[in-house]
Amino acid sequence: QMAGVLEECILEIKRIQHEARSTGIPVRPHWPMIVLRSPKGWTGPKEVDGHKVEGFWRAHQVPLTNVKQNPAHLKMLEDWLRSYKPEELFDEKGRLIPELKLLAPKGHRRMSANPSANGGLLRKALRMPDFKDYALALEGPGKVSAENTPPLGQFLRDIMRSNMHNFRVFGPDENSSNKLDSIYEVSKKTWMAESFVEDADGGELSPFGRVMEMLSEHTLEGWLEGYLLTGRHGFFSTYEAFVHVIDSMFNQHAKWLAMAKAVPWRASVSSLNLLITSTVWRQDHNGFTHQDPGFLDLVVNKSPSVTRIYLPPDVNCLLSVADHCLKSTDNINVIVCDKQKHLQYLDMDSAIKHCIKGISIWEWASNDAGFEPDLVMASAGDIPTKEALAATVLLRENFPTLKIRFINVVDLYKLVPSSEHPHGLSDRDFDSLFTLDKPVIFNFHGYPWLIHRLAYRRNNHKNLHVRGYKEKGSINTPLELAIQNETDRFSLAIDAIDRIPSLQVAGAHVKEKLRNQQIECQNYAYEHGIDRPEDDHWEWPY
Amino acid sequence: QMAGVLEECILEIKRIQHEARSTGIPVRPHWPMIVLRSPKGWTGPKEVDGHKVEGFWRAHQVPLTNVKQNPAHLKMLEDWLRSYKPEELFDEKGRLIPELKLLAPKGHRRMSANPSANGGLLRKALRMPDFKDYALALEGPGKVSAENTPPLGQFLRDIMRSNMHNFRVFGPDENSSNKLDSIYEVSKKTWMAESFVEDADGGELSPFGRVMEMLSEHTLEGWLEGYLLTGRHGFFSTYEAFVHVIDSMFNQHAKWLAMAKAVPWRASVSSLNLLITSTVWRQDHNGFTHQDPGFLDLVVNKSPSVTRIYLPPDVNCLLSVADHCLKSTDNINVIVCDKQKHLQYLDMDSAIKHCIKGISIWEWASNDAGFEPDLVMASAGDIPTKEALAATVLLRENFPTLKIRFINVVDLYKLVPSSEHPHGLSDRDFDSLFTLDKPVIFNFHGYPWLIHRLAYRRNNHKNLHVRGYKEKGSINTPLELAIQNETDRFSLAIDAIDRIPSLQVAGAHVKEKLRNQQIECQNYAYEHGIDRPEDDHWEWPY
Repeated sequence: QMAGVLEECILEIKRIQHEARSTGIPVRPHWPMIVLRSPKGWTGPKEVDGHKVEGFWRAHQVPLTNVKQNPAHLKMLEDWLRSYKPEELFDEKGRLIPELKLLAPKGHRRMSANPSANGGLLRKALRMPDFKDYALALEGPGKVSAENTPPLGQFLRDIMRSNMHNFRVFGPDENSSNKLDSIYEVSKKTWMAESFVEDADGGELSPFGRVMEMLSEHTLEGWLEGYLLTGRHGFFSTYEAFVHVIDSMFNQHAKWLAMAKAVPWRASVSSLNLLITSTVWRQDHNGFTHQDPGFLDLVVNKSPSVTRIYLPPDVNCLLSVADHCLKSTDNINVIVCDKQKHLQYLDMDSAIKHCIKGISIWEWASNDAGFEPDLVMASAGDIPTKEALAATVLLRENFPTLKIRFINVVDLYKLVPSSEHPHGLSDRDFDSLFTLDKPVIFNFHGYPWLIHRLAYRRNNHKNLHVRGYKEKGSINTPLELAIQNETDRFSLAIDAIDRIPSLQVAGAHVKEKLRNQQIECQNYAYEHGIDRPEDDHWEWPY
Repeated sequence: QMAGVLEECILEIKRIQHEARSTGIPVRPHWPMIVLRSPKGWTGPKEVDGHKVEGFWRAHQVPLTNVKQNPAHLKMLEDWLRSYKPEELFDEKGRLIPELKLLAPKGHRRMSANPSANGGLLRKALRMPDFKDYALALEGPGKVSAENTPPLGQFLRDIMRSNMHNFRVFGPDENSSNKLDSIYEVSKKTWMAESFVEDADGGELSPFGRVMEMLSEHTLEGWLEGYLLTGRHGFFSTYEAFVHVIDSMFNQHAKWLAMAKAVPWRASVSSLNLLITSTVWRQDHNGFTHQDPGFLDLVVNKSPSVTRIYLPPDVNCLLSVADHCLKSTDNINVIVCDKQKHLQYLDMDSAIKHCIKGISIWEWASNDAGFEPDLVMASAGDIPTKEALAATVLLRENFPTLKIRFINVVDLYKLVPSSEHPHGLSDRDFDSLFTLDKPVIFNFHGYPWLIHRLAYRRNNHKNLHVRGYKEKGSINTPLELAIQNETDRFSLAIDAIDRIPSLQVAGAHVKEKLRNQQIECQNYAYEHGIDRPEDDHWEWPY
């Protein structure tokens, strides 16, 4: 009977496939499904000590406990095991008899050897356009503002165009909101349900669409994991605060990848690429509920062999990082980059070098070349970088002889010792960047303690002072939110004055001035609901 | 028509309630529901520049952008706003006219003033039995083993008995597995669907049950939040690895509580009490997928005004902590305690003092009284505490003159500076416990870097050496798993030898011996699938 049902289903599947392929008309067929109901604990004891076991919840527990002490239970266990008639299945040496061995299918027909269950065997590398073609041309660092995600959208569009059979883009109904909507020029949102005339105007729906959208982060994550594990490629973008919906799925996928890497016959699969955008610092009208950069704190708990975190500060860095991630295998790549208009820092050539190094001194923002710096100003993330640069300018304007080294971090794992993560900097490299004894102010995108968690073993950790989001916020202007969390230019400059020995006392007047400016910004934002244009449109002045 | 439908529904609800209350027969009624469908963006512009807006997805965006520059759009905006006829609604000073003002209901009939929406107004404190009545009597510290959760189950049972109208216990079908099943003596699992004869034997189902079970962590969390916010009390237990399913809901509830605390008219609600059990260290047959102590890393990101974390090491501490949590308000209390058999350390009197202090020196396990210690051995969590104690014994046996101070942490936030969390120890207290310059070995239940994240500002942080789970594991015996993550007695003792200046060279022979013992344990576990009885049944020897 089972064989008959299977045959029937396979014929029905073939009929559906044939019809779809020969007519080209997209329909949502009712795929056949076999429901096999078998009693839980089937063949085991029906009852133990008068309590029902087979076909009941007790069969989920240990059905016979205490067989060593209870001869009646031991007898039941023996009867149960003997009911399989092992003497008919195995020879006198305990080997499976040849007739049964022959029943097993051969090669790829074995369930565990099916290539779709070891998708890396089927995986073909993406055909990739040159990401440099999407570069934003700059007049100089920190002069122009641009939205970070649209060029990535164009890059994804052209990847899609060249890989229409093994690439999909996923998002909880946010590809437009996340400004990746160029993708729709080549493929729409998958939609096979009813549609209306008005959907033709901007709905971007199509039964042939390869963009998976649904306001359900965990459904998308499940689809993407299945897609990758069967040998294909994908890209998932989501709002930062709501990526926590898939925390548990991320954990399990990371565990799975870590174990799969240790199994020699498992072929490499494409990395899971996750763009976290619409970030904490620009939730101008959504407010506190949408402010949560804590996913990274979860990511760093998982195996260093599979986890990667990137915080590209601008368009060109984002393109370079995305190119790298889409070509990589067996990782979970988390990219954090906001979708709004932000200052642009690096031309494409500089961006590539910066992203390959993962961390570097920005020469154009530093004035310590040839000297010992008085201060290291560091940043990771788009908005924190702008404020850190603005703080550097405030300090240089007020203390013209001060030597400041400016460091930006794209690859967050650079901060970890090389013994702990394959991307980690050696102590020698870390020490030369961050010095052994100078104050370091680090402006971070996420919760500040994450930087301490990554860098606590470093020699200069005692001088490392981190600012980041600390769960203070509401419906704020960007600068107001930064001030509340002390990641704004004024707070950073004041922190620096407090930590540079020569300024601790002498800098008091400048501290007063900076604090006054900060108050002016807060009052303006409160009164007008926006930041002062001169702060909002701030540019790198040198 | 609306009024008619409302009236009809209310009458139907009253009929259902009357029937249930007069007959006492539990049924699952079809409650009436009103579905009001209104077009999205109703009354706004139907079309803008030829694109459909009202009743379409565009109404979710800004319907009219750029009104400052576009006079046609400005005109549409004006027409839209004038369509509400403000001149009929407001007087010449812009005040709502008295006839309309009168329409609003008064007092508690105002939606936002409904006490059920400000549940703290309805909240009555639980009637609590004395938790000391459930104490486990001990002969001495570290001699007896017991399962940690059953006495809590009895305590919860008696709380339930005295609060049958405003207390519920929640769990993803795990109250039995988590050994809280005494609760069923007074109230069963809520079950109003079909049931079978065999369910009467151990099914613990009843339409009058007040225990909420469903293998769906997020459904339970939603129920519990609603229950608490309407003025009731609850207790949620769940497997540690799967609490991540509710990460996002935890985040939002923590944000809600933090904001509610800042709103003076909001009355205090009961805390959300979360027992995390079936923990990472005892997943003997579940393995790697069930090993994830990372929820705490998420908890510490949220506002210190609402987050609390407790790691009671034994039965009596768990009872004391649970009593405190069930009486508290406006917090999220996370209690981490395994359900399996573990060594018991403190009698009830000591447990109460230890839990109130949150952190303390265990005199009976220390031999440094009156001296400067050579080493501080610290622990948080049930299993890490046992291994830290066993390491202390190994060290004292091998180096009889060594002075070791043993510290246990129940209230994890004690490690944070008092400026950062209301439970934080002052630097003075921290320094006196952990010294300014002695090596500290800290054996932690969770990911080890969490301790650094909490304590990085402390004076002796540079000498703080933390062990914890670092994502290494499989189907292991408890000691094997500890060895893989270097939280076992041998690794800890070796760490200590490496960090105590007088032993760094002289201790080499003992290090070899300990390493040999560790290898013996590993080999035994590999061969027999269990730990050596002498390790498994280890007791505190002094």
